[in-house]
Amino acid sequence: MYLLNGENKQTLDFSDRGFQYGDGLFETISVENGIPLFLDLHLQRLITDCKKLLIPPPDNHLLQTEAFQLAKGVDCAVLKLIVTRGLGGRGYRQPEKISPTRLFSLHPFPVYPENYFQSGISACFCNVRLGLNPMLTGIKHLNRLEQVMARAEWETLDIQEGLMLDLNENIIEGTMSNFFLIKDNILMTPILDLCGVEGVLKKIIISLARDHNIEVVEKKISKNEVLIADELFVTNSIIDIWPIKKIESKRFEIGGVTKKLQSSYLILKQEAIHVV
Amino acid sequence: MYLLNGENKQTLDFSDRGFQYGDGLFETISVENGIPLFLDLHLQRLITDCKKLLIPPPDNHLLQTEAFQLAKGVDCAVLKLIVTRGLGGRGYRQPEKISPTRLFSLHPFPVYPENYFQSGISACFCNVRLGLNPMLTGIKHLNRLEQVMARAEWETLDIQEGLMLDLNENIIEGTMSNFFLIKDNILMTPILDLCGVEGVLKKIIISLARDHNIEVVEKKISKNEVLIADELFVTNSIIDIWPIKKIESKRFEIGGVTKKLQSSYLILKQEAIHVV
Repeated sequence: MYLLNGENKQTLDFSDRGFQYGDGLFETISVENGIPLFLDLHLQRLITDCKKLLIPPPDNHLLQTEAFQLAKGVDCAVLKLIVTRGLGGRGYRQPEKISPTRLFSLHPFPVYPENYFQSGISACFCNVRLGLNPMLTGIKHLNRLEQVMARAEWETLDIQEGLMLDLNENIIEGTMSNFFLIKDNILMTPILDLCGVEGVLKKIIISLARDHNIEVVEKKISKNEVLIADELFVTNSIIDIWPIKKIESKRFEIGGVTKKLQSSYLILKQEAIHVV
Repeated sequence: MYLLNGENKQTLDFSDRGFQYGDGLFETISVENGIPLFLDLHLQRLITDCKKLLIPPPDNHLLQTEAFQLAKGVDCAVLKLIVTRGLGGRGYRQPEKISPTRLFSLHPFPVYPENYFQSGISACFCNVRLGLNPMLTGIKHLNRLEQVMARAEWETLDIQEGLMLDLNENIIEGTMSNFFLIKDNILMTPILDLCGVEGVLKKIIISLARDHNIEVVEKKISKNEVLIADELFVTNSIIDIWPIKKIESKRFEIGGVTKKLQSSYLILKQEAIHVV
């Protein structure tokens, strides 16, 4: 189901700059019980990032209305929102008057063969390196060839996520998730000053950790620090929190800090579903 | 005028991965007198780059046929070809069976207020820095936010192109062109090992220079080397060769090497138009 600029449409104009140049952004939102979860945070990020890309952000209230319109009566689904710089002529120069395209789409919630939230996942290190780009870092934009190429590295169902390093050999994120490690009860996550996506769930997890007086550090993290960590997990708005139980041949426990954050997150999520 | 997978269509499926993730490539081809110029070189690059991105390249002969079909009877136009990884579900993982999308579109040839080929252009240095990404370097892919942001830096009609530096402060290219400088009769152009697009015209110019026994060097080039050069020019398949006569406050002559390459290029182009 699609809603293009408020209308039921099935197709896009070829001249949309999202298609021509990846000139736009997106959000991936979990829908449960008719509620687009943490919609405020998603739209806040979208609007902030639109401004960084000089795209006039669509009206927040309008986006809220359309998101709830699509989510209405839906038990469980993924709501994706794409915003682009709109239609334009050939050439990188942006049109004088920008009318952004907004596209909501509703997708089936992915079915995973196991309860990865509880039992954890197996991960690998990807060979593809994330390029460095301070201008675009943090933004969930449509230039995603790096993630596509990294995700193409494995076919096996035995691996659920790949961790990506950047050109400087620092761990940055999963192909579709943010990454956390716990060492000596300190929660650490890569600092995304040169590349990576600032996930909505990353922000929530950091905030929950601080509520629990868990020390949180955003810093450069090496592959070796990952391998000697006490606990590892990845997060995004659809998978929530997946502990990593195995990476390459190294095994990890689903430890106390991870479990504490998972249960706090589940409470927060239940509140979000039931109190709107 | 559009040709989507061989059919006259006006719109694109939302689920095309070109739109969802910038998961594709493009070519911009000059059409003169019914001929898509240097089509072989364009398709050669496209097919090579498809392979780098693990996109099964469309059939070369089919692309040739469709290009000539659109160009037929057209005096002067721009032919754009976009190839994407095709339709796909949500998520970075590529579909098991990839059916690439190919879209040809015909656009009016841009009208420039002056004959920049003869009289030269004014350029600026962009503030936006190109990120570093050895995996994607050279490829004319659809992840073009850097170029969009760089081109948004100036509105004035007094500037025709912006030169972009990378994160290491090396000159790489123009927002829409490759860049050359001449110093002591040596033709130099940035080495694109970390970022940049390997233009079809760049290849042609280097080959013409070698035919004239002009020494050609691909190397790292600093901003300072640009400012003390004897001659500067930028190239792409639509503008051909534009000498730079002014960058910031510094003025340049349209020198002998540039003029020699321009006249050789015009001869080559005439041959391409008349001998197919």
